[in-house]
Amino acid sequence: MGKGRLEAFSDGVIAVIITIMVLELKVPHGTDLSALVPLVPVFLSYVLSFVYIGIYWNNHHHMLHAVQRVNGLAMWANLHLLFWLSLVPFVTGWVNENHFAALPVALYGVVLLMAGVAYYILERVLIAHHGADSPLARAIGVDFKGIASLVIYAAAIALTLVNPWISFGLYVFVAIVWFIPDPRIERGLPQE
Amino acid sequence: MGKGRLEAFSDGVIAVIITIMVLELKVPHGTDLSALVPLVPVFLSYVLSFVYIGIYWNNHHHMLHAVQRVNGLAMWANLHLLFWLSLVPFVTGWVNENHFAALPVALYGVVLLMAGVAYYILERVLIAHHGADSPLARAIGVDFKGIASLVIYAAAIALTLVNPWISFGLYVFVAIVWFIPDPRIERGLPQE
Amino acid sequence: MGKGRLEAFSDGVIAVIITIMVLELKVPHGTDLSALVPLVPVFLSYVLSFVYIGIYWNNHHHMLHAVQRVNGLAMWANLHLLFWLSLVPFVTGWVNENHFAALPVALYGVVLLMAGVAYYILERVLIAHHGADSPLARAIGVDFKGIASLVIYAAAIALTLVNPWISFGLYVFVAIVWFIPDPRIERGLPQE
Amino acid sequence: MGKGRLEAFSDGVIAVIITIMVLELKVPHGTDLSALVPLVPVFLSYVLSFVYIGIYWNNHHHMLHAVQRVNGLAMWANLHLLFWLSLVPFVTGWVNENHFAALPVALYGVVLLMAGVAYYILERVLIAHHGADSPLARAIGVDFKGIASLVIYAAAIALTLVNPWISFGLYVFVAIVWFIPDPRIERGLPQE
Repeated sequence: MGKGRLEAFSDGVIAVIITIMVLELKVPHGTDLSALVPLVPVFLSYVLSFVYIGIYWNNHHHMLHAVQRVNGLAMWANLHLLFWLSLVPFVTGWVNENHFAALPVALYGVVLLMAGVAYYILERVLIAHHGADSPLARAIGVDFKGIASLVIYAAAIALTLVNPWISFGLYVFVAIVWFIPDPRIERGLPQE
Repeated sequence: MGKGRLEAFSDGVIAVIITIMVLELKVPHGTDLSALVPLVPVFLSYVLSFVYIGIYWNNHHHMLHAVQRVNGLAMWANLHLLFWLSLVPFVTGWVNENHFAALPVALYGVVLLMAGVAYYILERVLIAHHGADSPLARAIGVDFKGIASLVIYAAAIALTLVNPWISFGLYVFVAIVWFIPDPRIERGLPQE
Repeated sequence: MGKGRLEAFSDGVIAVIITIMVLELKVPHGTDLSALVPLVPVFLSYVLSFVYIGIYWNNHHHMLHAVQRVNGLAMWANLHLLFWLSLVPFVTGWVNENHFAALPVALYGVVLLMAGVAYYILERVLIAHHGADSPLARAIGVDFKGIASLVIYAAAIALTLVNPWISFGLYVFVAIVWFIPDPRIERGLPQE
Repeated sequence: MGKGRLEAFSDGVIAVIITIMVLELKVPHGTDLSALVPLVPVFLSYVLSFVYIGIYWNNHHHMLHAVQRVNGLAMWANLHLLFWLSLVPFVTGWVNENHFAALPVALYGVVLLMAGVAYYILERVLIAHHGADSPLARAIGVDFKGIASLVIYAAAIALTLVNPWISFGLYVFVAIVWFIPDPRIERGLPQE
């Protein structure tokens, strides 16, 4: 089964997710600078969510690039990932409306954690399908970075009980770490 | 007439449908766990609708994979299917807003039934276009599974008069049965 | 300049247009059949708009299929067509909210007329680019059907002053005429 | 790394952006011509934003057409451009809701300026990746037109303090200048 349509569908879903988030940026009613002040944290969380969705698209692109074929299991693992990503606009909206209160920030972390788990599952499904000595398997290896991210998300969720801004800082930290596309796959594979 | 653009357009429409459903998940106003409680059934029906759209995309992908070409009739049969799928966000929203009342759950079933009928029509149109001895025709055969699903949807619609939760349970049951991509097509066809 | 990305972009825009129209179907608050009654005309106009967008996609698909290349002018002619199609959800919403009052129905016709004009311009731009003896030019010819549609739209706009339902009936009539993909192009061209 | 999926994803995001702007055109409640009067400036800014997004898609198409491959940096430069374009519906809505008040018009200019800067960065990243003697580099050159646009945007932002309509006129002026696809790339490159 070819991978083309899985890529095309994922591109479509991710494109819609990344774009409808802007609908959360409600048009302010005033026309002076003070009307924009309450939008600043909203804008910051929009930027973070945009970057996260961008990271997932980027890594998804890299991983699928290294893949020759997909099976039914990979298609559902991929839909599972898209499901959690589709919730990012919702949790972004909840964080915004409540000025970074503890529970919304925790739920934001839960969605990031579940998306990370879903990505990890997709990774393992694709590796199992291609074999342990495939270029994909050798390029990804144990995926320390992916697992470490999950641990940090879990810690950040717990830390919302202490201070949600620490948690938000950890989300930003993970985003910065993932900002650069995974060099393992680029290194491990022949160029197109 | 090639099938590429029909696939691309269907991917686009299905990607938008599956993603705009999240707009039905209205951001709650509170910040404690009790604010999330009313969202639990909403979330469950979101999951069910997401899975249904995912199933349709998956089976659409498999069926079109087995198809060599499309004609004008197939393009309209495909648009007919997309029409009913496009109503899934609407009926999901109505079910949510009314806490699984009888009529909304029945209408949800009507949309599932009509989408199932539309899929069946598309299947028959494509088989008629490729001939009764085509790999597609042999792979699908009589399509007991598709017809049985239609019968169960019809029963579930009637059962909303007894208890809408029985109907909802039947929708979940059919979703589970369809969860796995149709092995008939994978088996019956040479791999890409 | 290849036509692939113009097709992909048009597919994306049309897919979003055809899908966001469903957001106009506001979830009713009641749970009995009387809650659905006011939705019946809304649903009918949704069906008509869905069919119109489907017709445009279908004919766009057929026309581009017969095209070898596009130039900058064709790209803007195509964006011009997408612009008018993008207004279909807006005029559909206005018609719905005002129960088929004269002015909204007239504006609906104006958008159909302008979309028809834009399609005609795109057709002429592509024919000019490919030459008067190209398969595309021979397949389309004078385009009586396209011109007749424009005349009917104009008449329907004027007739809203008499009775908007006559106008709406004319929109339905044109949709039925266009329902079948243009046989001229299918006939005039070698198959893929 | 191939450019296909970057193009597909960009097409998807731009298609959603250009289409969800129409959601800002709120359905008026009246049914006479006076109900449409307040929509005239809204419509004009919708047209301008549609044209701007169309220009970006057009030029993006042309530039990527001249590109053989993309790297991780280009993918982020592209996402950066999409980020600023995704804010166009928001600033369009703010301009509309406040009848072209100074600050909203200035912010509209800021988003245009940042999108222009992002496009310029993407251009330089792609040129750096392909080498100073690549067809892309020779076709684009110093990009006087791009730099001049940035200067005009900056001037227009400052001029909102004098009269927002002057600024709006400058945005229209730049749009007209960019309306035609960049002939430099078409000239400098072999045809497909």
